[in-house]
Amino acid sequence: MKRIGILTSGGDSSGMNAAIRAIARSAISAGLEAYGINYGFAGLVAGNIRKLDSSEMDGVIDRGGTLLYSARFPEFAQEQTQLKGIAQLKKFGIDALVVIGGDGSYHGAERLTQHGFNSVGVPGTIDNDIPGTDFTIGFDTAVNVALDALDRVNDTATSHQRTFVVEVMGRGAGDIALWAGIAADADAIVIPEREYDIKEIAEKINRNYANGKQHGLIVLAEGVMSAADFKDKLDEFSNFETRAITLGHVQRGGRPTAKDRVLATRFGDYAIRLLLEGKGGLAIGIHDNQLVATDIIDTLENHKHQTDVSLYDLNERVRF
Amino acid sequence: MKRIGILTSGGDSSGMNAAIRAIARSAISAGLEAYGINYGFAGLVAGNIRKLDSSEMDGVIDRGGTLLYSARFPEFAQEQTQLKGIAQLKKFGIDALVVIGGDGSYHGAERLTQHGFNSVGVPGTIDNDIPGTDFTIGFDTAVNVALDALDRVNDTATSHQRTFVVEVMGRGAGDIALWAGIAADADAIVIPEREYDIKEIAEKINRNYANGKQHGLIVLAEGVMSAADFKDKLDEFSNFETRAITLGHVQRGGRPTAKDRVLATRFGDYAIRLLLEGKGGLAIGIHDNQLVATDIIDTLENHKHQTDVSLYDLNERVRF
Amino acid sequence: MKRIGILTSGGDSSGMNAAIRAIARSAISAGLEAYGINYGFAGLVAGNIRKLDSSEMDGVIDRGGTLLYSARFPEFAQEQTQLKGIAQLKKFGIDALVVIGGDGSYHGAERLTQHGFNSVGVPGTIDNDIPGTDFTIGFDTAVNVALDALDRVNDTATSHQRTFVVEVMGRGAGDIALWAGIAADADAIVIPEREYDIKEIAEKINRNYANGKQHGLIVLAEGVMSAADFKDKLDEFSNFETRAITLGHVQRGGRPTAKDRVLATRFGDYAIRLLLEGKGGLAIGIHDNQLVATDIIDTLENHKHQTDVSLYDLNERVRF
Amino acid sequence: MKRIGILTSGGDSSGMNAAIRAIARSAISAGLEAYGINYGFAGLVAGNIRKLDSSEMDGVIDRGGTLLYSARFPEFAQEQTQLKGIAQLKKFGIDALVVIGGDGSYHGAERLTQHGFNSVGVPGTIDNDIPGTDFTIGFDTAVNVALDALDRVNDTATSHQRTFVVEVMGRGAGDIALWAGIAADADAIVIPEREYDIKEIAEKINRNYANGKQHGLIVLAEGVMSAADFKDKLDEFSNFETRAITLGHVQRGGRPTAKDRVLATRFGDYAIRLLLEGKGGLAIGIHDNQLVATDIIDTLENHKHQTDVSLYDLNERVRF
Repeated sequence: MKRIGILTSGGDSSGMNAAIRAIARSAISAGLEAYGINYGFAGLVAGNIRKLDSSEMDGVIDRGGTLLYSARFPEFAQEQTQLKGIAQLKKFGIDALVVIGGDGSYHGAERLTQHGFNSVGVPGTIDNDIPGTDFTIGFDTAVNVALDALDRVNDTATSHQRTFVVEVMGRGAGDIALWAGIAADADAIVIPEREYDIKEIAEKINRNYANGKQHGLIVLAEGVMSAADFKDKLDEFSNFETRAITLGHVQRGGRPTAKDRVLATRFGDYAIRLLLEGKGGLAIGIHDNQLVATDIIDTLENHKHQTDVSLYDLNERVRF
Repeated sequence: MKRIGILTSGGDSSGMNAAIRAIARSAISAGLEAYGINYGFAGLVAGNIRKLDSSEMDGVIDRGGTLLYSARFPEFAQEQTQLKGIAQLKKFGIDALVVIGGDGSYHGAERLTQHGFNSVGVPGTIDNDIPGTDFTIGFDTAVNVALDALDRVNDTATSHQRTFVVEVMGRGAGDIALWAGIAADADAIVIPEREYDIKEIAEKINRNYANGKQHGLIVLAEGVMSAADFKDKLDEFSNFETRAITLGHVQRGGRPTAKDRVLATRFGDYAIRLLLEGKGGLAIGIHDNQLVATDIIDTLENHKHQTDVSLYDLNERVRF
Repeated sequence: MKRIGILTSGGDSSGMNAAIRAIARSAISAGLEAYGINYGFAGLVAGNIRKLDSSEMDGVIDRGGTLLYSARFPEFAQEQTQLKGIAQLKKFGIDALVVIGGDGSYHGAERLTQHGFNSVGVPGTIDNDIPGTDFTIGFDTAVNVALDALDRVNDTATSHQRTFVVEVMGRGAGDIALWAGIAADADAIVIPEREYDIKEIAEKINRNYANGKQHGLIVLAEGVMSAADFKDKLDEFSNFETRAITLGHVQRGGRPTAKDRVLATRFGDYAIRLLLEGKGGLAIGIHDNQLVATDIIDTLENHKHQTDVSLYDLNERVRF
Repeated sequence: MKRIGILTSGGDSSGMNAAIRAIARSAISAGLEAYGINYGFAGLVAGNIRKLDSSEMDGVIDRGGTLLYSARFPEFAQEQTQLKGIAQLKKFGIDALVVIGGDGSYHGAERLTQHGFNSVGVPGTIDNDIPGTDFTIGFDTAVNVALDALDRVNDTATSHQRTFVVEVMGRGAGDIALWAGIAADADAIVIPEREYDIKEIAEKINRNYANGKQHGLIVLAEGVMSAADFKDKLDEFSNFETRAITLGHVQRGGRPTAKDRVLATRFGDYAIRLLLEGKGGLAIGIHDNQLVATDIIDTLENHKHQTDVSLYDLNERVRF
């Protein structure tokens, strides 16, 4: 092992730069060379590849987004394109590839591994919906960004005795909604993992108004339905004033939290240490607070992210 | 003069609590009593009025929203309702009323003044669209909240080479869009006060991409059109990838900035000092960095807020 | 079990209010009554105790500090004083006590338990130095507050090619220093758990300057020595310009992060559920991401907090 | 006029990068070339000068510190050194120099102007203590950073019924202390511009405790004395528990606020427009909300910054 490549793919998440830095620095520290691949798998196939110096990694740990850029590249589903990518890696003398990203990015890394090119996946996505890890890079930042918005919305809602339906990101997983919802004292959290009854939610909010609460808050995961649609349905059962908000893409970027930076640093360094031990074809993760690495093919094909739905029940006990 | 009343009305803005505190404390400091009226003009007519102690004003300066609550109350356009409000004020022995709020709130204060009840308007709205003042309470906070979102969006946009259309609040005025847009290095700022040509905007963004800029940003004032509509029109002239975001109600609440707290404190205290001098029927403001007070009836009927459109031209020079 | 008491003791930490809310709400939700004890053990002995309604718990989850106040009360080390406290609890019909706080607070809970009064400890301290848990309430917020400061200091240090020694809280444990230091790209992290060689640190910083880094950053745990003293020693071995900063008490308060709010909510609810199962005399914690409860006497007498020093080695690999 | 040079000097302040960007872009937009001089006057004399492209100015407006770096360089007080600087400017074909910085930086610009080299000063310092302007770049950010700390300190102080003495920056001017102090509900603000009586301050805080306030806060400008010394003196007159904090260098860096970014953009663009009109030897500023430019020699020799001490009296009326 002499050279490792790094790319980011899929939606950006805060802490990706911290992961890039950790991978590059940990590699350099072990006597390897680190190469950055711009624009994800598209850049890989195009050979948009450059050596990374340690000093380039100064001043990036606090930046959102990804300095290696990302790009959509559905063409990478084709075997021929994958082989072109491997040819580029070999041309640059790269022995192993670390891919930071979400589900789709992992599938790219899985394919390369299946073709015999040692590829490791580092989970970077705000949705927290990747198998093989309890937490992904960017999740903590996204939850805190959503929470900032919810705290502000609570001020406005209370001032006007209104109820807000706030849609947070999470197409396939309710994790952001659960964490931000508990933290914001939401009356109801609506996630794909659990049944919901809009009439019951309306009644609960009415009950809370009657008990002196000055506002209502529903935190809704994107994957369930849109905030506007939810508001319309809620209005059928309620006579309080309701507003819908979709937080959208403002949840991705921004300065990463300490937790995301440390997690990204641990993941990145762990990937390099495993590669140095001769291991590969792995999905990096954290499980029960321990760094773990599982077979990337098995992880993607046989496992699914498990949202901690006990948090849903918890919220029912503290916000009844 | 022995007792003054305070109410907040219209959309909440950050710093309203700082204004309430300043009015109450400055009144108490001058030997007056301060009464808070809950739920705006609705609460006024209903007699939802209570004495405010100085110690209740501890720990409120840093809170968003309004501790006196607000409420929509179109009925206050009727003279009979206005007279009921005055009757309540007299019942509580209140000699003058300070109303914190936006355009509609000012009209309420204007009506009471026309009926002979000394009422003073303090400008509190995030939109900065009130005549008689260069800046309103909550504007600076709203701009910074919008800017936080824009900075994050820039991270994501750069990571993906995308262009974002971000709609900020401002139904009648482009002030938030102008300030946040300049501060976020926006390629284009679209406001009601200025003509715009979507084709030219698309060309400018294309030019910037060609010069190495990794993303595009358009900041759009709510009053022009929706972000989704703007994106659709932009897509007709462009082939870059575009996303639309509407920041919405997250821009209202939250911890007020230092500027909003100091401005609110100056306004509130100034209102009391003018009342103590026997003046009334005034709109409080700041003009060219000096506290000013103008006749509330004349201000509302003969003046309009002037957005500083020189900022628009400025942005064209620094983001060409 | 009918009534539970809640008190906060020792230094405040962000998320204590979230814990109070969770304990009170979870108790009320289970049919119990919740009583708040003001001013810690001092208020307990004085009988400063009041019933908490669920609606009082609205709007507190986002507030720093503790709404039940805290107080130093060394007199509680005396058995007689402890028995007075128990008498007060019995007078109010309280069957079990949940104490939120740090080391000293736990000892109070331990004493009451030894006297036969069922007391549960919930770990709330920014230092993360309590046995029986991997993380304490307030730690994540404190790390992020410290990190905000370090990010800003890095801007200034880079502008002037300076090295800053920043002292963060942590009398007995280097956890804040480790997390904030890794996240801020610190050249060196100095903690009580590890030997350090100031000359080597100076040499490392010199090496980094030579490699193009524009500044130096040393994050120092309070327990090692003061920033001013460290700077003086460093100056003996270096010729770069150095400044010392002590962050101090600004690290305690402020809006809690999502992680601290969720952790506090889980801890508080778990304490109530254990009490409902008839258990008691416990220290609540989280270990390997699972809620745990250990015997409070055994925990305090036979266990010590284990700082994760693997993070120290990690930093050496990513910031060489 | 064909080429303009830009340098930053003295202590960094947030928004300097926004000013650099505005100067460079506004120059380029007008057909000029912009040159950046690294490391202040030291770099000027050494000829550390490079052309700035517009695209280099992407993504810098949100960054604290200064991308052109700063440096102490007392040697620039010597005429010979100044002439060397001018020789370097001429060597690079630079026709005019814009200096962003504080008092010392202005003196450098003044000397160059006296030697016949057209130099313009743009006020960038957190202390707000430069003649010729009501506000400097970085002041608003520094006030908000200090305020964040004060809000957090208030949480802790209230939890423990303590009084905190918090020293903020401002060697010669009390502006940061005044703004942050008003905004944080400080019991007392101690600034160089006003007499103070520590005994009276102690009595006021005691009075406030007696009236139910749960804590005390004194905001102290660095120029008066250290927080530790103030605390010692205060302890002679009080029996409440007091803590001292020095915020120090954490107040300089960080993401600039919207206000600082817009102000910096206006200043930078204005400097270029004046240079294009053939003017020079000027100090740029904002007075009564209007951009102004005054003779830099006259401004420095015959004028002093006027702190708005009416804010001091204001605080006495709202925090009695």
